[in-house]
This record gives sequence, C-alpha cells and structure tokens, in this order.
Amino acid sequence: MLIAGGLGPTNDDITKHALCEFFGTRLIRHPEIEVRIEEMFARMGRSPKDLLEVNRAQADLPEHCTVIPNDRGTASGMWFERDSRVFVSMPGVPYEMKAMMSGRLLPMFTERFAPPTIIHRTVLTTGLGESALAQRIADWEDDLAADDIKLAYLPSPGLVKLRLSTYANEDPGSARSRIDHRVLQLYALIPELIFGTGEERLEQVVGTLLRERRQTLSLAESCTGGYLSHLITSIPGSSAYYIGGVVSYTNSVKMEELGIPGDMLELNGAVSQPVVERMALGVRAALHSDWSVAISGVAGPDGGTEEKPVGTVWIAVAGPDGVRSVRGSFPGTRDLVIKRSAVAALDQLRKRLL
Amino acid sequence: MLIAGGLGPTNDDITKHALCEFFGTRLIRHPEIEVRIEEMFARMGRSPKDLLEVNRAQADLPEHCTVIPNDRGTASGMWFERDSRVFVSMPGVPYEMKAMMSGRLLPMFTERFAPPTIIHRTVLTTGLGESALAQRIADWEDDLAADDIKLAYLPSPGLVKLRLSTYANEDPGSARSRIDHRVLQLYALIPELIFGTGEERLEQVVGTLLRERRQTLSLAESCTGGYLSHLITSIPGSSAYYIGGVVSYTNSVKMEELGIPGDMLELNGAVSQPVVERMALGVRAALHSDWSVAISGVAGPDGGTEEKPVGTVWIAVAGPDGVRSVRGSFPGTRDLVIKRSAVAALDQLRKRLL
Repeated sequence: MLIAGGLGPTNDDITKHALCEFFGTRLIRHPEIEVRIEEMFARMGRSPKDLLEVNRAQADLPEHCTVIPNDRGTASGMWFERDSRVFVSMPGVPYEMKAMMSGRLLPMFTERFAPPTIIHRTVLTTGLGESALAQRIADWEDDLAADDIKLAYLPSPGLVKLRLSTYANEDPGSARSRIDHRVLQLYALIPELIFGTGEERLEQVVGTLLRERRQTLSLAESCTGGYLSHLITSIPGSSAYYIGGVVSYTNSVKMEELGIPGDMLELNGAVSQPVVERMALGVRAALHSDWSVAISGVAGPDGGTEEKPVGTVWIAVAGPDGVRSVRGSFPGTRDLVIKRSAVAALDQLRKRLL
Repeated sequence: MLIAGGLGPTNDDITKHALCEFFGTRLIRHPEIEVRIEEMFARMGRSPKDLLEVNRAQADLPEHCTVIPNDRGTASGMWFERDSRVFVSMPGVPYEMKAMMSGRLLPMFTERFAPPTIIHRTVLTTGLGESALAQRIADWEDDLAADDIKLAYLPSPGLVKLRLSTYANEDPGSARSRIDHRVLQLYALIPELIFGTGEERLEQVVGTLLRERRQTLSLAESCTGGYLSHLITSIPGSSAYYIGGVVSYTNSVKMEELGIPGDMLELNGAVSQPVVERMALGVRAALHSDWSVAISGVAGPDGGTEEKPVGTVWIAVAGPDGVRSVRGSFPGTRDLVIKRSAVAALDQLRKRLL
C-alpha cells in the first residue's frame, strides 16, 4: 500500500505518528537524516538559523522501518513490512514524491516483487481529438491484439498521447521489435499528427528544431496572454533561440509596439487574419528573429460574437519564406482555449520548421 | 466508493463494461443522454457530421443505475447502490469531474448521508514558508483546540493556505462566530502576510485593486518568461486593467524595447537592481500604464554564479510614486523559481496598491 502526504513540519502533519501507532513502534531521532536536513538547508542558500526545531524534528522517524531519503526535500519516506505486505509512506509534494518514486522506490519494488517486464512506447499526437483519431486508426488498432499489444489514449488539452504496451518476460528482444513494428506502421498512417515520442514536449521539439537550424524565435500574443512564451521558456536553455515577445493585450500595444495600422484594427477587428499576420511580421521585424508566431483570439468567457464566438483564434507564423495563418475554433473554458491555442500555434511553427 | 476515469469514447475506456459485469446489468442506449451529447457538440460549434458513432455510444449506459449528467462533456457519471453502500463512477477529465462533484454529486451525497456540517475558513498567505509561519503563529494555533477548531497548512509554490475547520451541527451560528473570531485574531497577528480568503487568487486580488483604482498595469519579464503575464490574463476581464507586456529574454530586447543602456547591462549584468528598475520604468513609459512590474533573475538550472546563484531574482514595481525593488532568493527547480518569483512580484505590487 502506498500513501502520500502528511509528513511536513506543522502540527497537522500526523502521518508518522499514526504509522507508529499502527505498527507498534515509536519515533526516534535519526542523526543521518538530521545531517541531510542541515545540508538541504545549506544547499538552498538558507542560513543555519533558519533551521527551526520543527525542521530538525523531521528527522524523528519510526524506530522500526526502512527510512527512504528524500532527495528534494526534508520529509523522509518510510517502508514497513508486515505479513509479507509492504506499506510505503511518501511525501505529498508532487516533485518530491515523483523523485522518490523513480529514484528510490521503483528499484526497491523491482527487487522485492520481481514484477513482469512491460514494454511501453508512447507516440505523441496533436491536431485531432481522441474520437476522430480513434476512428482514423481503427484498423491499425484492431490489429494490435494479434501481437498482444494494448493501446491507451491519454488526452490532455490539445494533445493525445498513444501508449502501446506489451509484456516481455519470455523474450524482451522479440517484444521490443513487435511493438516497434507497430509504431512504424502508425508513423506511416498519421505522419502529420505525430510530433514526438516518449516524454518529449511539443515546446521542446520546436526548440530542438530551432537549435539545429541555428535560428531564433519571437512571439506576439494577444488572447494567450504570455502562456506560449511561458511554455517556450519552461525549457532549460531556451535563451539559445528565444529572443523574446510582446503581449499585446490592448490595441494600443498592437499599434505602437507591433506597428499595426489603426484603420486595419478598426476595419477587421483584432481577431482577424490581416491583424494576426501583421502582428507576426511586426514582432519579427522589431525583435530581429528568424521566425515569429502571433496569436489573436477570443478566450472568453465574454467577448464572443455571432461571427467570432468564444474559442475563435487566429494563428500566424512568419519566417524567412513569408507569413501564413490559420483560423482555429477551440472548445472549452478560458483556460482550455488558451492552452489549446498555444499548442496549435506550436504545431504550426513545427510544421514550418520541418 | 468513488472512481474516476475510463468513460471516454475509445476502446481502452472499459469502466462501464466492468461496472455492468460487477452489478449484473447491461448497457442500453439512454435517449435523453444522446440528446445531451448532440447539444454539447452543437454548443462547441461542431457540425453534426463530427458526431461519430463512438460519441453517440457514450449514451450507452447501464440499465440499472442512476445516470449523472455531465455538464461539461459527453461522459456521464453513474450511481449504484448495493447493501446500503454507494458506488459512483465519474469522468476522469479534471474540469468535468470537478463540476459533476460540486454541481451534481455533493447535493446527492448530502441528501443520502446527512453528513455533519463542517464550517471552513481559508486564509491565504504569502511571504513566509510553512515552518516559519507555523512558528510565528504557534501560540494562536495552540489556542484553537479550546474552540474545537482544527488548522491545516496547505502549501503551494510561494503560498501557504491556512484552513480552519470546526463541526457545527448543534449550533451553526455559534460555530461560525467562534471561527470568525479566530480569523480576526490571525489578521491582527500577521496582517502583512494575508492577501485574501477562500478561493481567491493573488492575481485576482491585484486585479480587483487595479480595477477599483481605475489604474492600469504593464509587465517586463525576463526569467519568468511570460508566466506572470499568463497569471494576470488568466483572470476573466483582465483587459480592463492589463495593457500588455514585454518578455525581454535577451539583452537586445532589453535595450531596444525597454531603453536600457548597453553599458548599464555590461556593468551590472541583467540580473541587477539598476537593470530591473530600468526595465520597470521602460515598460511603464512605452506602454503608458499607471503601474509596471519587472522581473530579472536566474531561473536555472544553468547560469548561476557564486555571486548570483540559481534562484536569485530582482523584482521592481514602478508607479506614480516612483520605482522600488527587492532582491529575492527562491529555492527549487526552474519551474519553482519561475512560479515563486511571479507570486512574490504580485505581492510586491499588491502592497504598493494598498
């Protein structure tokens, strides 16, 4: 059994007390964990006087358990066994828990339980919703059973991940080639929808393409309000190709910073093909980049009209070979319209870079 | 028992088949749900021909169960009872599940189980980590037990929510005044750390202050790369006070768009007090806003030095009464440095607006 949370330094963190009661043990100070907590504070550039007694008390752990060190925080994990069953308590902070699971616990589980080997391949797609995608690849999917391969559709805003899985205990080599063969078939079937594999992110794929071409990018965002810029800069090292951007939330910024004529805005409205193309050309010229992306749309919940309902978004990509634009129509809440617009814009740029 | 997920239109969505087997029933088409699915497609601006048979098949639901309509998607929930126990299956998409839980299921649970009434008050703080905050309010916290009030610390990057809870069955009025009295005490104890209550977000509090003052905001972001602009524009109606921003990821943008002298950058580096203050003044002048916020720092994982390690961030706020700046030092990954910087910058602006 795995549990997470309640291991922090405050009075409402009662997990380890409850575990001691359940397993009939008691808390004792673990000096090697106290040293780790001191080192963690020093690494975060905090002075020893910031180390409060409540922080040191995180080294008070059950006498009879295997302590699992936390490489990203001060709350240790705990491993108990009773009647051949394993109970593990993990920290609740997601990025601490993930590191403990992958770095510390998975090797321990593998040794303890010798689980069957499962081979996964994940293919990343964008451009079709999961129902339409399933219809498009239905015949291919039906054939997977013949190879003992299972398929999972893992949708998130703007994306569908396809995960193929198969058991590989008898012959891992043959299982691997069986599954890779099906992945190649999928590439042949929907080449334009696939942007990567595994844990890759679309903003990373685009970054790698720019880096390989030694080209640069700038952005002009209206309805996405900086979200696309945030995605691009969430990738470490993005300063190698990302120059910067303008969030032109009002028409005055579109005119003054991006050089869009006032009468063009008045005639077409901000959410229009001429304006979004001029936004892309304007930011590319102002920031001297090889490529630029511009987005202008109606994120909602207000501001929609009959002609341009909420979710209407224009996306333009300008580059050495000129500017092109597409109109999208994205369903959902304000948050989803913003996320889907940004993903669609990244994919437009990716296709131009190929 | 509550379960979520596996209700989508693709072949790997097997939850309802498993439920039919377990509860000894079978799937039948529910015409009223099929109509809802058609209406949902129409509302999303999609043509009837996009409605595939796999989408219609989402109206195939168990013959013997209470169907829970989904107000945000096409996957209905299901409510089963057996031996006085309730089993509920909900969609896995978070924003669909949340709406079903709060809008449909909570009233059903309340009617079915008549649970005890619990009164909550949530006080939102920023500026101190949870350990230091706990030390600061220790005496106040110790006193809560006398009023049968429990306290939970709910931390997220840059914020700690304090949730007070108490049972209120016998006398809700007295419970409410008991808990409100403690909240007032907390306000008196840590006035500078509290920015709101309940479900409020800091970017919303700042937006409300700007709106009340009929003033406007612009942003100049370096290490946060557009994330602060994204937070501001995630609030519906933010175009009433947010003019726009510049993501000055490279020095050339800082010089050309924000008017920072090249020798100032060379002498001090981009992550410095003079540069961040000029960024704030530059964007305020260029975009003609009442207020501006600028952020320049080292988000990592690379780029840190002895003098300016990863997590070093300068934040400046410029307004009608001049420019002021603070230096922060934020622990954690790139993602956490970005999030904590943005929260700290919002709080600097909030304090100036008060």
